[in-house]
Amino acid sequence: MTAPSHDRYLIVSTDGHAGLLPEKYRDYLDPQFRETFDAQIEAEIAERAAREKDFLIKDYNEKWREGNVGMLAAAWDSDLRNQVIDDDGVAAEVLFPDGITERNAPPFGAGLSLKPWGVKPELQWAGARAHNRWMAEFCQQEPTRRIGLAIVPMLYDVDDAVAEVIWAHEHGLKGILIPALMGDRPAYNHPRYHPVWRACAERGMVVHTHSGPAPDYDFSLPGAMGVFLCEFAWWAARPLWHLIFGGAFELFPELKFCLTEVSEFWVPSMLEMMDVRASVKHTSGKLGDFRSNLTLKPSEYWRRNCWLSASALFDEGSTAVRHQIGMESVMWGTDFPHPEGSWPHTKEKMKQYMTGIPEAELTMMLSTNALTCYGLDAAPLHAIAARIGPPKALFVGDPQ
Amino acid sequence: MTAPSHDRYLIVSTDGHAGLLPEKYRDYLDPQFRETFDAQIEAEIAERAAREKDFLIKDYNEKWREGNVGMLAAAWDSDLRNQVIDDDGVAAEVLFPDGITERNAPPFGAGLSLKPWGVKPELQWAGARAHNRWMAEFCQQEPTRRIGLAIVPMLYDVDDAVAEVIWAHEHGLKGILIPALMGDRPAYNHPRYHPVWRACAERGMVVHTHSGPAPDYDFSLPGAMGVFLCEFAWWAARPLWHLIFGGAFELFPELKFCLTEVSEFWVPSMLEMMDVRASVKHTSGKLGDFRSNLTLKPSEYWRRNCWLSASALFDEGSTAVRHQIGMESVMWGTDFPHPEGSWPHTKEKMKQYMTGIPEAELTMMLSTNALTCYGLDAAPLHAIAARIGPPKALFVGDPQ
Repeated sequence: MTAPSHDRYLIVSTDGHAGLLPEKYRDYLDPQFRETFDAQIEAEIAERAAREKDFLIKDYNEKWREGNVGMLAAAWDSDLRNQVIDDDGVAAEVLFPDGITERNAPPFGAGLSLKPWGVKPELQWAGARAHNRWMAEFCQQEPTRRIGLAIVPMLYDVDDAVAEVIWAHEHGLKGILIPALMGDRPAYNHPRYHPVWRACAERGMVVHTHSGPAPDYDFSLPGAMGVFLCEFAWWAARPLWHLIFGGAFELFPELKFCLTEVSEFWVPSMLEMMDVRASVKHTSGKLGDFRSNLTLKPSEYWRRNCWLSASALFDEGSTAVRHQIGMESVMWGTDFPHPEGSWPHTKEKMKQYMTGIPEAELTMMLSTNALTCYGLDAAPLHAIAARIGPPKALFVGDPQ
Repeated sequence: MTAPSHDRYLIVSTDGHAGLLPEKYRDYLDPQFRETFDAQIEAEIAERAAREKDFLIKDYNEKWREGNVGMLAAAWDSDLRNQVIDDDGVAAEVLFPDGITERNAPPFGAGLSLKPWGVKPELQWAGARAHNRWMAEFCQQEPTRRIGLAIVPMLYDVDDAVAEVIWAHEHGLKGILIPALMGDRPAYNHPRYHPVWRACAERGMVVHTHSGPAPDYDFSLPGAMGVFLCEFAWWAARPLWHLIFGGAFELFPELKFCLTEVSEFWVPSMLEMMDVRASVKHTSGKLGDFRSNLTLKPSEYWRRNCWLSASALFDEGSTAVRHQIGMESVMWGTDFPHPEGSWPHTKEKMKQYMTGIPEAELTMMLSTNALTCYGLDAAPLHAIAARIGPPKALFVGDPQ
């Protein structure tokens, strides 16, 4: 895949968020759930607000929202979304739920965290399907630029999950978001999930986890947020080694799995550790043969089947590990519209963190890896980038 | 602290295991628990055997046991223990419970894993106290060479935990083993545990977690052991950041905390991540001020208050990270009598993995760091090492 020789970068942001305000999901719900929706939605919104109060700093977030209030409707407004990403230099985006921090997300616990406890499965499914219907519509309005994901709460009935993967694929979505936390449900190395992996592998539907989900911490305790920040990447990443050691990538060599916004510090050491553990060693000999179902090293499955969407990669001085993670595995995202992301100052932040990175490497991280991962048509995206992409000259020079 | 100029290394192994066969704990139990003990112990032993069957490779372990059967009684036999560690070149040992793999451990779930679920707290405490009484006796038979730890299931009543710390200190024990897994109990950043940290800090009692504890994985699933091997270090390490961000090391600057057998790959990247998270950054700004209770960086608490007992460090080609972990933080252990440790070939394995490491660094890892951590008297230990320690000449040369 050769990039056209224009002087702007094509950016495919692999971490964006979109979703309706909660009350607007009503029209997308299967009718039999609307009565429950009407009875519960106000309480659910109040509960989210209370949780947000525990979790987020009010002043910081309100100030941030005030400065951007006119643009936040880009979470659901198609024209505004185009304008926002044009201004940000982004040609296309992978779209997760939960558009504005915790405020707008699908109902019934079907948002980003997808916890398999404290919810009713049939309601969580109903919320997920409502979001997926809306997301499919949203993407159909701009199919070149919107890489939509379906929410698939796959820990319950597997046939339901397979049916949703098929529906999502037929309606133009490009992948699925699965629960990162397995709770008391069978873990992802269980063969019961093989039909889901197969359905995704056969259709090029990329399976995602996204950071955010975590056990029910007591955020009133001192330092709880520090604990969360040490652990959030872990909770989102655990499915990785369940899939590797469970043999999902061995059985379904075409399966694609993407970890989104999970930090990157830990990846090289975890890959090394998995390879060590998987080799026959004195230290794990007593624990038996968990390797016989694998023909590759864990790090080889990583490089063949997995991607890392590193929304915060360039904000933490750790571009150094990109080679250890694998230059073909790292993708970038703006995390629109979350305040920890780069929007609305993406170009300035890119200049700050990316100056001095060779063009060939930037090209991989900003676009070609994503084109491969999601199987995208490059030509129309390059045409958009030629109009709105950041000039390559912006990143030439010594690192800042 | 200057080491005598003899030509042998002093080894203080910071990971050893000792304990009675389960039925022998009866005499050390408070009398009111003996009836329950008599009624339950056979079922508990059978359950352990069944679990071991799931978890461990029978052939590997039986073969290993056969080859060492005469020596395994060193888990509880004082004279034999001296003979075994003499032969291994070890002058002194830190002693955890669970002497022979999973077979001999205190009753009522008071062994190494200390899960706070599926047990009755008063029984788990009874088992822990029985072990502690025996351990105190065992150490009193050889007070120079045995650095005994008390089992303290501190997640229940905090006064009980403080009383046990005081009892253990008064009876010559040097630290405590706490549950790594917190389950549904209040997490270690809860102020309710401050009296325990204070009691330990005031007495130089080193607080330990040890790998092994894990959630109830379904080991019948493919790759479950691979998942466990990716995660066991994590479960044992989680208390570290609860203590750091909860302010335990800030409030109790003398508190000593030791992570035992938790691998080491992840430590440098986790220290870096904690420091990044704890600095005021765009990416965590929205999450609020969890840093105001800390005057040092997380990595500074690590270097001041924490140690890593790296029993498997030299078996996985990762001596390279010792400097990043901190040369004053790394200690070594043989893990006697577990098959994944170095016994009964400690000297050969040391030669294999330690040849070429500078003497000053080996000295720190093999002894002086432990002397500092546990506040040990060096002179009598050096006298023992002059008799049984491995010759320094053994490790001179190029790395093998």
